Amino acid sequence: MSQHTIYAEVQNVPGVLSHISGMFSARGFNIKSLTVGETDRPTLSRMTVVVDGDDHTMDQVRTQLQKIVTVVRAEDISDTDCVERDLALIKVKADSIKRLEIHELVNIFRAKIVDVSPDCVVIELSGKENKIDALIELMKPFGILELARSGRIAMTRGN
Amino acid sequence: MSQHTIYAEVQNVPGVLSHISGMFSARGFNIKSLTVGETDRPTLSRMTVVVDGDDHTMDQVRTQLQKIVTVVRAEDISDTDCVERDLALIKVKADSIKRLEIHELVNIFRAKIVDVSPDCVVIELSGKENKIDALIELMKPFGILELARSGRIAMTRGN
Repeated sequence: MSQHTIYAEVQNVPGVLSHISGMFSARGFNIKSLTVGETDRPTLSRMTVVVDGDDHTMDQVRTQLQKIVTVVRAEDISDTDCVERDLALIKVKADSIKRLEIHELVNIFRAKIVDVSPDCVVIELSGKENKIDALIELMKPFGILELARSGRIAMTRGN
Repeated sequence: MSQHTIYAEVQNVPGVLSHISGMFSARGFNIKSLTVGETDRPTLSRMTVVVDGDDHTMDQVRTQLQKIVTVVRAEDISDTDCVERDLALIKVKADSIKRLEIHELVNIFRAKIVDVSPDCVVIELSGKENKIDALIELMKPFGILELARSGRIAMTRGN
């Protein structure tokens, strides 16, 4: 069992996502994160899926993905040299005293406070997953009220 | 037809994503973006779906989502006061001369250059969708080689 990052370019039509996610669940793969977003071409979407699974089954899944007509391209980019990023919004309990302390940590991480209310703040941080994990750990003692993560997006380095 | 942001908390088990995305595609909704990521509780995932659809059908979908046993909570947060963020990686053609010009624009947007090779750069930007759209427009004349977006994540303001 190891973690795999699957990158797929798919046609922007209803049904393609349910087809793909169905293929993973039929094999008992649990999807750790999945993002589907727009690309520079309006007819295409770009999908990044992070799953845990053994290498052999993963290879079968990739082959089957490529057979779906609405899938333009599918690759396992786990061993490719990539820029990998994740985005998080973290809502943390903060009165006026704790807020100063949180602000200092936020600055160290080059994160941003994007919302402030009398009893909490919302922090935005993009970066590698372990950087986001580290900030989350530091925020736990203050009290995390809500956490949203986009899941991994990835892009190969160079041209 | 209007754009809807659906937020759902789901159990972290295989099949839930294909169930949900199947529900949207059965009604002909095209998913503009979808993210599924981890939360602070390992048994729960958090899903944000952006779709175009009429208000009445959307309401039916939300009701049906809530009936799925693996869906803990589902809400249409389109009219709620939210922090909404998107993350993009943009690979742009850049020789050593163009790179300077691109770097200046990247600084104005408080984006980051996260990879440099002799003929291209990879830019990372998180923010509201229209901010990301604006940077993409500015990068088009240089030549966009690849674009990856996470899709929207959202969090209500305040506690």
